[in-house]
Amino acid sequence: MGILKQIKEKFHSRETISSVKRELSSNLKDSLKDLKEELENNDCGCESDDVVVDSGDVGSDRVSLKSIYSFHEGAKEMKDLLGGKGANLAEMKRLGLPVPEGFTITTDACNFFLETGNYPKGFHDELAEHLAEVESKMGKKFGDIENPLLFSVRSGAKISMPGMMDTVLNLGLNDAVVQGLINQTGNARCAYDSYRRFIQMFSDIVLGVDHAKFEHALEGMREVRGVTSDIELTVEDFKELISQYKAIVFEATREQFPTEPIKQLSKAIEAVFNSWTNERAITYRKLNDIPDDIGTAVNVQSMVFGNKGETSGTGVAFTRNPSTGEKKFYGEFLTNAQGEDVVAGIRTPQKIEKLQEIMPNVYSQLIEIKDKLEQHYTDMQDIEFTIEEGELYVLQTRTGKRTAHAALRVAVDMVEEGLITKEEAILRQDPNMLNTLLHPSIDKSHSYEAIAKGLPASPGAACGIVVFESDDAVNKVENEDTKVILVRRETSPEDIQGMHAAEGILTSTGGMTSHAAVVCRGMGKPCVAGCSKIRVMESDKKFVIGDIIVKEGDIITLDGSTGEVILGELKMKKTELSGHFRTIMDWAKDMKTMSVRTNADTGPDCKIARDFDAEGVGLCRTEHMFFEEDRIMKVREMILSKTDTQREAALKELLPMQKADFKDIFKAMDGLPVTVRLLDPPLHEFLPSTEEKLTEVASNMTIPKNELRSMINQLHEVNPMLGHRGCRLGITFPAIYQMQVLAILGAAIECHEEGIEVHPEIEVPLVGCHSELKAVKAGIEAVTKDLRPMIKFDYKVGTMIEVPRACLTADEIALEADFLSFGTNDLTQTTFGISRDDAGKFLNHYLDKKIFPADPAATIDQKGVGRLMQMTVELGRKANPNIEIGICGEHGGEPKSVEFCQKIGLDYVSCSPYRVPVAILAAAQSAIKSRNLS
Amino acid sequence: MGILKQIKEKFHSRETISSVKRELSSNLKDSLKDLKEELENNDCGCESDDVVVDSGDVGSDRVSLKSIYSFHEGAKEMKDLLGGKGANLAEMKRLGLPVPEGFTITTDACNFFLETGNYPKGFHDELAEHLAEVESKMGKKFGDIENPLLFSVRSGAKISMPGMMDTVLNLGLNDAVVQGLINQTGNARCAYDSYRRFIQMFSDIVLGVDHAKFEHALEGMREVRGVTSDIELTVEDFKELISQYKAIVFEATREQFPTEPIKQLSKAIEAVFNSWTNERAITYRKLNDIPDDIGTAVNVQSMVFGNKGETSGTGVAFTRNPSTGEKKFYGEFLTNAQGEDVVAGIRTPQKIEKLQEIMPNVYSQLIEIKDKLEQHYTDMQDIEFTIEEGELYVLQTRTGKRTAHAALRVAVDMVEEGLITKEEAILRQDPNMLNTLLHPSIDKSHSYEAIAKGLPASPGAACGIVVFESDDAVNKVENEDTKVILVRRETSPEDIQGMHAAEGILTSTGGMTSHAAVVCRGMGKPCVAGCSKIRVMESDKKFVIGDIIVKEGDIITLDGSTGEVILGELKMKKTELSGHFRTIMDWAKDMKTMSVRTNADTGPDCKIARDFDAEGVGLCRTEHMFFEEDRIMKVREMILSKTDTQREAALKELLPMQKADFKDIFKAMDGLPVTVRLLDPPLHEFLPSTEEKLTEVASNMTIPKNELRSMINQLHEVNPMLGHRGCRLGITFPAIYQMQVLAILGAAIECHEEGIEVHPEIEVPLVGCHSELKAVKAGIEAVTKDLRPMIKFDYKVGTMIEVPRACLTADEIALEADFLSFGTNDLTQTTFGISRDDAGKFLNHYLDKKIFPADPAATIDQKGVGRLMQMTVELGRKANPNIEIGICGEHGGEPKSVEFCQKIGLDYVSCSPYRVPVAILAAAQSAIKSRNLS
Repeated sequence: MGILKQIKEKFHSRETISSVKRELSSNLKDSLKDLKEELENNDCGCESDDVVVDSGDVGSDRVSLKSIYSFHEGAKEMKDLLGGKGANLAEMKRLGLPVPEGFTITTDACNFFLETGNYPKGFHDELAEHLAEVESKMGKKFGDIENPLLFSVRSGAKISMPGMMDTVLNLGLNDAVVQGLINQTGNARCAYDSYRRFIQMFSDIVLGVDHAKFEHALEGMREVRGVTSDIELTVEDFKELISQYKAIVFEATREQFPTEPIKQLSKAIEAVFNSWTNERAITYRKLNDIPDDIGTAVNVQSMVFGNKGETSGTGVAFTRNPSTGEKKFYGEFLTNAQGEDVVAGIRTPQKIEKLQEIMPNVYSQLIEIKDKLEQHYTDMQDIEFTIEEGELYVLQTRTGKRTAHAALRVAVDMVEEGLITKEEAILRQDPNMLNTLLHPSIDKSHSYEAIAKGLPASPGAACGIVVFESDDAVNKVENEDTKVILVRRETSPEDIQGMHAAEGILTSTGGMTSHAAVVCRGMGKPCVAGCSKIRVMESDKKFVIGDIIVKEGDIITLDGSTGEVILGELKMKKTELSGHFRTIMDWAKDMKTMSVRTNADTGPDCKIARDFDAEGVGLCRTEHMFFEEDRIMKVREMILSKTDTQREAALKELLPMQKADFKDIFKAMDGLPVTVRLLDPPLHEFLPSTEEKLTEVASNMTIPKNELRSMINQLHEVNPMLGHRGCRLGITFPAIYQMQVLAILGAAIECHEEGIEVHPEIEVPLVGCHSELKAVKAGIEAVTKDLRPMIKFDYKVGTMIEVPRACLTADEIALEADFLSFGTNDLTQTTFGISRDDAGKFLNHYLDKKIFPADPAATIDQKGVGRLMQMTVELGRKANPNIEIGICGEHGGEPKSVEFCQKIGLDYVSCSPYRVPVAILAAAQSAIKSRNLS
Repeated sequence: MGILKQIKEKFHSRETISSVKRELSSNLKDSLKDLKEELENNDCGCESDDVVVDSGDVGSDRVSLKSIYSFHEGAKEMKDLLGGKGANLAEMKRLGLPVPEGFTITTDACNFFLETGNYPKGFHDELAEHLAEVESKMGKKFGDIENPLLFSVRSGAKISMPGMMDTVLNLGLNDAVVQGLINQTGNARCAYDSYRRFIQMFSDIVLGVDHAKFEHALEGMREVRGVTSDIELTVEDFKELISQYKAIVFEATREQFPTEPIKQLSKAIEAVFNSWTNERAITYRKLNDIPDDIGTAVNVQSMVFGNKGETSGTGVAFTRNPSTGEKKFYGEFLTNAQGEDVVAGIRTPQKIEKLQEIMPNVYSQLIEIKDKLEQHYTDMQDIEFTIEEGELYVLQTRTGKRTAHAALRVAVDMVEEGLITKEEAILRQDPNMLNTLLHPSIDKSHSYEAIAKGLPASPGAACGIVVFESDDAVNKVENEDTKVILVRRETSPEDIQGMHAAEGILTSTGGMTSHAAVVCRGMGKPCVAGCSKIRVMESDKKFVIGDIIVKEGDIITLDGSTGEVILGELKMKKTELSGHFRTIMDWAKDMKTMSVRTNADTGPDCKIARDFDAEGVGLCRTEHMFFEEDRIMKVREMILSKTDTQREAALKELLPMQKADFKDIFKAMDGLPVTVRLLDPPLHEFLPSTEEKLTEVASNMTIPKNELRSMINQLHEVNPMLGHRGCRLGITFPAIYQMQVLAILGAAIECHEEGIEVHPEIEVPLVGCHSELKAVKAGIEAVTKDLRPMIKFDYKVGTMIEVPRACLTADEIALEADFLSFGTNDLTQTTFGISRDDAGKFLNHYLDKKIFPADPAATIDQKGVGRLMQMTVELGRKANPNIEIGICGEHGGEPKSVEFCQKIGLDYVSCSPYRVPVAILAAAQSAIKSRNLS
């Protein structure tokens, strides 16, 4: 933290430093950037939160330097200090574009104000200086009753935030100044219109008076005058309205509407500051992962008037089509209007092309400007402009939001145009948005209302009739040829058949990594999980949300990307992978340095993943094979065996089935590594859980039901997640792992003989102590002795890292292992001491109250779990430099987590097939970023 | 590892180093000691196992130097190399005591042999040299038919091990040599008796021939001769017996008994080596925590004969009474006998005092020797001696085993005698043995047979009639005034009443930290847990072990110190704390540097602990109070409240009850700190779990049973240990913690006003993230605002450290906490990912197969959990240097764990009341050791 200290030392006495203020302020930005990098590099485990907290501290030092920047002083790189809007206004000034004069109050001033309740020292002097500067540049005076200067006041954080106060226009008007405006413009109607707009906006936004009251008065006036549009109202009407507005304000606030312009300005600035902490803003930040302490800047800009008649107007335009990405100017405008009219939707705006007809000069100037801006920013821009009596002004430019499709197309086009590099094209994609391209989605052009919202557990949309039992799902699909949605309190491995049959899954409990969520993501099937508002009554075959009762057979639609549950059938759209997508993915593959594998349990799943360019299987869960109908009975026989002989007989029958599974997988993954995890879950998961199933199994196995029940009770566990599973099973019942190893290597031998290139990796789950791995390896050695002459390929034996003790003793474990693979689902659960199945009862509360900055099941908890991972990599690589280290937990397809994996030096990430493109893109971005850093 | 490397480099070529061998061998011992210390200091987290593994490696280097040491070469410090017996024989030689000549084959030679199957290079030359040396000293020759030298061959590991081969006497005899022995001694009877003993012992121990066969032949001979004792048998009888013995050997081994003396010796040496790995030895090592790779030495000593008539004899003596500790010579001897006769119990030995009458000179020589040995070793000695025709020989000396009582008395006496320091007196106590002084125990003077053995989960013995339900336990005790043993599959918090009523608890599942075990240790009540051989059929009110059925009303006895279950009532003895115990504890208190607190939940428990010198409460579990009969219903109302108002009303009724509890505790702990943990367990633990209870609660609460059941089902958790508990409850239902904090501080205020000195410490459980602690603290702040003027004492707020994430982020947490307290029960479970309630299914297997070196629930896993603890202390102290750090998990009273806590610098340990003296002693020992190191 050298720089921070330096700064603090230099400025520990504010009084004596005014002389060096100016000199340093311009360098400060760079210093802070360095500081941030220093902080980030210092502690790989820390989240961006911390960095911001620290730079927040720096902020309160910074405010002593300079609180206000003229548009002539800033630049686009100064977003942290000036906000996005302010930085871009300054940048446009630098480019010589027609930007109305003004200045920006810094985010530091905002933070200082929010912390202390006061303005920074010297703020008011600075404000006066800057007002004077604008007045002199504009040749007008703020609050002057002859030639008045009016201002717009806008908030502008580093990141655009719809939840905050937006804009107050026409600030500086009162009963006297409005006369000056008439003098100045000769347009009384415009002046009074502006005045009543100002009162309305200011009162609504700054004073908190319900804006419906003003709308109501305006409507009343239209009614009284018998007109339908405001344009038809007269100057007298507006005067009358202004009186009414003032009365409304007094009634609501018990104070007169402030008439003094400087007081208006100061109240507006405070209102912008305070809007940072209003509820909507806080919610928006939470939803969008924006830190709470970056603060907002305030832009004070001299007004230009789009409401001065038919040669005036206002509009919004994109340099390219934000929906398709097509390279075509795209926008809308309204004549004789101020900014909010375009948004308000009272009048229908015209297409931007129309401007060419109405004001060809303005249009061509606008074209010139948009080209200049796009070239300068090298990205698609979203521009706001106003025309005042034929004179064009640009009020804002920012990077234009776009659809996932458009993002791909714009980036590819810009690379082809030579505007940006391929790396930049990659960095501009939001990996999470790719997801929407890979799954069907609800056609949002029709409106609908959700009856409940759960966790968006597996993306994509699905629609079908509701069923409550796995068997019903299978029956309906097979016999009635209908699509079904399986609704359950929670799913268990027994529901696999039903989940396969269903279009989507809805559960009332369980989080983002509950059984339903994990399996659905693996299957690429939509899932809404943990929808706690619904009460599922499986036995009554219905679920209830408040007064709504949904019965078996009713149709619902799920949106697994948003968590919404909708009654009835909605129209879907399926997006195909376009050529631009292909191009971007090809570039990404070239640029990434980590491999991307897939978590897949069957040949077909492997095929899907391989089509998405997966470079191997990072996790094949053998237990999923155990649930298939033709073998679950054998599995149960194996578990319930009373003697080793019985157990071995059952295993012998399972062996060829497993071998066939592995052959499918090896074939699909010809030439690529395949990591197969030996049996992991506790045995009772395979046993029947309902009375009905119990009867069936008892009769199939010809054992008395009571005996079966008692055997199952014996297998019951208090905390199954921490129980007799993983290698603990493999060590106490070695025959199971022996069968699996024979199946894996047997399949590999046969595939190899058929000319398939096999790279099997045998993975031992839940190792916490090197001696466990040693014990299992000894068992593997013993059982493969006879096969050895036939094994003409290399195979690896390694372990999952999924309990903290494995991380802490990774040096010992690494000596026994060819590879380590982080099972971050279980590692997160054990590190936190939180069961994913039970977290529902408090996790939402924790996220709401920001007790957890993010759901650790969704993105790697870098401070806790991440520290263990880093420790593992360091200890493991030190002990065994050739060891291969990857991740196969759910986080392996989550972009932030992928970036963390790159940072700590993993060899690969692995995720569900439909996540593979997301992971590839994230891996490419991480690689580019780490190259840029070094 | 500097020294190891040095040694290796110096000796990388064995051929060229013979010249420096001798010079270095004497220094080597010291080097190895340094090496060990170096290794131990290098890695605080490593267990003694590792050190041994490493020094094992050193061993195979060492064997090239010198495999055999004459008794004139060794010393008592060389136990690692010469074993305990060999080192002490050499030491006695150095002291000038009458020790028959001989030599010791090193443990390294043994290890080399066991690893490679060969003797170390040059071994046979060395052996020949040493044989020649003894022959020359004794003036006899091994295998000589005129004047033969005979040997005894004995094993002797560093630690005495009953499981190993013990002794072969009279080695070197055959049909020819026996004549030489007659020549030499003129005692044919003694010679033939020695010969037949030799064949019998050698065949049994070395050749593995069932010794019953020889006994049978001997009995046959007695019968034929019509005599009752061997002494009555003649020379001819022995000759005849010898022929029979040889025949027995040939029949059993299909080989002739080896006649060549050198072959006998070599076979005997190999037999000693191999006995290291026999099953009994392995089991013994496992039970006594002795490393497998330290090997055994072999002592070859020239024979002296106690069977040469009435002026010969053999005996065993202790320098003080090993049972009481009294300073009085204590022992037994037999005339005309060899060593094994004393042990065999065929003839009744005489008291040592008798020797004074029979052979006064020998006796006074023996007294002189025992005084010399005790002074020299400064500890009570266990001496073996033989008298050959009036000549006294000492064959062995070792530290005498003693009872816990004797250990205390001997130590205190020796301090008073100026023989040892107080520190040594403390170091000599086995903290675990103190346990037996604190609980009643089975009177072992009567023999008995256990019907089953479970885990020794809570020490002490208890006896009573068997009951299977908590209510039955209460009823029987209250109404029938009888003592009961509660037997259950496993206990739950609902059984608390019954556990209180019962004398002891027996469970069939659950480990050393299962509910039953933890609660019983807290109550100081005997418990045998996880007794997996018994099948508990609670509904039939019986349990079954094989063919034995134990029904309600049958009487059983439990030994919670050994895990034994015995049918019927056994006699008990209760040991009082003697004055010596008090003295030792006073010394220990002075010497320890860590505080010792107690885990206690009630005033009476606190009183017990304080009588044992506890220095505060380290953990008061408020939930235990919730189960008391008068409040459990209120607790249930609180949990099942449908509205906040209902919940608050129930809490309001609980408040005065909790306050009263805390007042009792503060009064009992006047002047000492009291850490109170806020509610920790998941709420469903408080709800009824049986149909019967459910009915009762439903009727009490006047809610329909079905509704109650559904509410309870809602609270069900898949993994309750990782669920909605601890601060997660406190954060989501803040009213509960608010009530508790009001009760704690309210009680403290009232106590303070009554003149009690209070030091409350409020402990927040299950914190994994600093923001959780912050949130709870904010709640505490809010609720205590009104109390503040009345709080005229300091109180602390801190947290348990019981999930890995808390350790990894201890720097952040420490900034929010006044103290941290390791909850190592949960921390061990989460670090390993093992539930203590479910571990029973594999843990025994793991311990048997040495996959885990020890049960991590019993002693801190220093490599894994310990590393996290160390990290916590480092991060925590760095962030907050004044933070208080302790441990309140079950490990807080386990000596090895206490030592580890000292090592990493904890401020206190805390354990159940009856463990407090153990912890004080262990803490004193740790403090002394760490002082000695520095």
